[in-house]
Amino acid sequence: MTFLNDVAQEYPDAVSFAAGRPYEGFFDLGDVHRYLDRFVAHLRATSGGDEARVRRTLLQYGRTKGIIHDLVARNLAVDEGIEADPESIVVTVGCQEALFLTLRALRRTERDAVLAVVPCYVGLSGAAELAELPVLPVENSAAGIDLDDLVRVVERAKADGRRPRACYVVPDFANPSGASMPRATRERLLELAEEHDFLLLEDNPYGLFHQAAARPPTLKALDRSRRVVYLGSYAKTGIPGARIGFVVADQTVDVGAGDPVPAEGGRPARSETLADQLAKIKSMLTVNTAPLAQAVIGGKLLAHDCDLRAANARETRVYQDNLRRVLDGLAERFPAGSSPSVSWNAPTGGFFVILTVPFPADDALLALSARKHKVLWTPVHHFYGDGVARHQIRLSFSQLTPDEIDRGLDRLAAFIGEQSASPRQGDAR
Amino acid sequence: MTFLNDVAQEYPDAVSFAAGRPYEGFFDLGDVHRYLDRFVAHLRATSGGDEARVRRTLLQYGRTKGIIHDLVARNLAVDEGIEADPESIVVTVGCQEALFLTLRALRRTERDAVLAVVPCYVGLSGAAELAELPVLPVENSAAGIDLDDLVRVVERAKADGRRPRACYVVPDFANPSGASMPRATRERLLELAEEHDFLLLEDNPYGLFHQAAARPPTLKALDRSRRVVYLGSYAKTGIPGARIGFVVADQTVDVGAGDPVPAEGGRPARSETLADQLAKIKSMLTVNTAPLAQAVIGGKLLAHDCDLRAANARETRVYQDNLRRVLDGLAERFPAGSSPSVSWNAPTGGFFVILTVPFPADDALLALSARKHKVLWTPVHHFYGDGVARHQIRLSFSQLTPDEIDRGLDRLAAFIGEQSASPRQGDAR
Repeated sequence: MTFLNDVAQEYPDAVSFAAGRPYEGFFDLGDVHRYLDRFVAHLRATSGGDEARVRRTLLQYGRTKGIIHDLVARNLAVDEGIEADPESIVVTVGCQEALFLTLRALRRTERDAVLAVVPCYVGLSGAAELAELPVLPVENSAAGIDLDDLVRVVERAKADGRRPRACYVVPDFANPSGASMPRATRERLLELAEEHDFLLLEDNPYGLFHQAAARPPTLKALDRSRRVVYLGSYAKTGIPGARIGFVVADQTVDVGAGDPVPAEGGRPARSETLADQLAKIKSMLTVNTAPLAQAVIGGKLLAHDCDLRAANARETRVYQDNLRRVLDGLAERFPAGSSPSVSWNAPTGGFFVILTVPFPADDALLALSARKHKVLWTPVHHFYGDGVARHQIRLSFSQLTPDEIDRGLDRLAAFIGEQSASPRQGDAR
Repeated sequence: MTFLNDVAQEYPDAVSFAAGRPYEGFFDLGDVHRYLDRFVAHLRATSGGDEARVRRTLLQYGRTKGIIHDLVARNLAVDEGIEADPESIVVTVGCQEALFLTLRALRRTERDAVLAVVPCYVGLSGAAELAELPVLPVENSAAGIDLDDLVRVVERAKADGRRPRACYVVPDFANPSGASMPRATRERLLELAEEHDFLLLEDNPYGLFHQAAARPPTLKALDRSRRVVYLGSYAKTGIPGARIGFVVADQTVDVGAGDPVPAEGGRPARSETLADQLAKIKSMLTVNTAPLAQAVIGGKLLAHDCDLRAANARETRVYQDNLRRVLDGLAERFPAGSSPSVSWNAPTGGFFVILTVPFPADDALLALSARKHKVLWTPVHHFYGDGVARHQIRLSFSQLTPDEIDRGLDRLAAFIGEQSASPRQGDAR
């Protein structure tokens, strides 16, 4: 993604549909002080007036699994209907650390692999590369995953001597596709995970930004057999600059790094939770997540009774309005049946829309679009990891104003029109 | 270390010589707000009044290599006489992440290995285990490293087809040994690194807590050929709860994960700094270090003109007084020539003293010491990683009051006397 950042820095006056970052219009530095104070008051109330303990909790080295795990558990109950044991939660340095810890724990042998729907979030591919866990691609569909292909990939992997340990999915408003899984798909996915014995890694950074009553339950809320490792982030719903994420890992696993070794009676001699295993890895990686950063998010959770859906009502409205404006704007500029032939999907929430264009969109075309038309977008091929240009681009609208969206779509239409009429005509200029 | 934490929690009324944590007596929650405000004022002054940019820098996703790199560079110049290009600095989630990033970057092939003086800090062993980089042990000496053994280990490794990429050292008040390297040892170590072509990983968490004018320059200050990767921590000199460390990695390395492939003329086709390579790995691991946590440390640096030696004058006095009290207290309780025969080293700073006792000190004895004598210490065998009990224990004195030190040493003398007279007599009670 370095190239994308470079392009963005080189053309600061371009409209950027590239960065999937949260809206900044409501950022308030005063919040940081208020949330810190709120969390300190909470610590005082729960520490029986032991001021030294309050100071130690915030300023000293801290608990490996975190200090806001109880508040995270309450937040999951309120916002997602997930009942999580606070001891099964590890608070991490953003969701990215949670991804790495989980993949690193799942790689026990060279046979292990992780499944992922492609196009796939680059954070998953990056963490898997670092953990040296191969990613086996599964086809996407309008339902967010092609379940038939999933079974094929699992069976082929097993036939090849591999162990597909888990399947990574973003069931709500996936990045980059924006697709969401219907409830029936979620239920069937849970059955398949049980049947073929793999875990589901559910990543849910965007789920809260939905239209009321329009969203099916998370996989973790439907999970009755601890098949789901739930990966959460407060980068979009809390404060990105605190870098706080978490993982719910309530699975029972065997102690030791090798394959399970059943003791007499067929049961492992000792077991622990996956969360405890992740904590051991974390102790070698970052020791613990900054208590001061956790305190800011803890304070925000407390200030809103752990209801971040309510706390993000303004943000949700911005994202929903922007989504509507992008979809309406595309329909105006590319009427059905007209030329060039451009189509797009219609997510009901999240940060992203996928546009299908009549030419392969690569980094060179992005550079041209930035230079000549002052509009940025993300080539979808970055989410395949094979370097082959696709006819698709990702539009992110989370950081833009309505005016910027209109201006950006005008420029995008001009760029697409030019490319469709005479491919790469701008290259020589 | 889980066992040690468990023992500490089980006996809260025990005196603990076990935890190597910074002194808490000067902790002040008001500092957090003051330092945040100080850093915000600095950002305002350097952002030309662009308030949106100030908010974005603190609250949005941030620069992978960090936002206080310029202040870290100034701090290194003031406190350590190190001239570092801010672009060669990566701000990390504590020094532990810096260790992992560096070791992970150094492991390019299965032949690669890292050298380390044993007994060795468990954070290094843990990071190496996670990065799957073998650790080749080098003998310790009163000078902090046995240079002859270093050469032997390097030559033997090369003869075995291995590539010793780097040697990890804590030249100032090492953990656990407390030993420091004389200037001549440092200079010779730099020559050997050059001669045998390996890097030096210099970890310096305790160097600032020295008696004035009593400390030789850091390896990095002496480094003229970019042989030293410098690992820093603000956990002891800043605020532990911010979890801010950093690495200075100004080496030029070849682009790509494999071995260097010289292009025509014998020079690699493309190169970048090791810092940029670490940043790429970090982007897959934690994305970036929480800007809010960096801001707190940045504010502390600004509030003290980047002079943390001065900012830690009170803490240094506590550590030096405690060290003196431990050494004097040991001399009183174990006079020369008396029985039991107990000896210890005499560091001139840092957090640790090593005690040599007339029996192998293992975890079972620690549990006995905690239960019967209410005094905790760390068995040194944990720093060898081979599970073989040594006749040595580590005493940490950084967190104790003078009274606690006296009481703890009384208890320790009783425990040692009992064990020396009749080993493990307390076991049955």
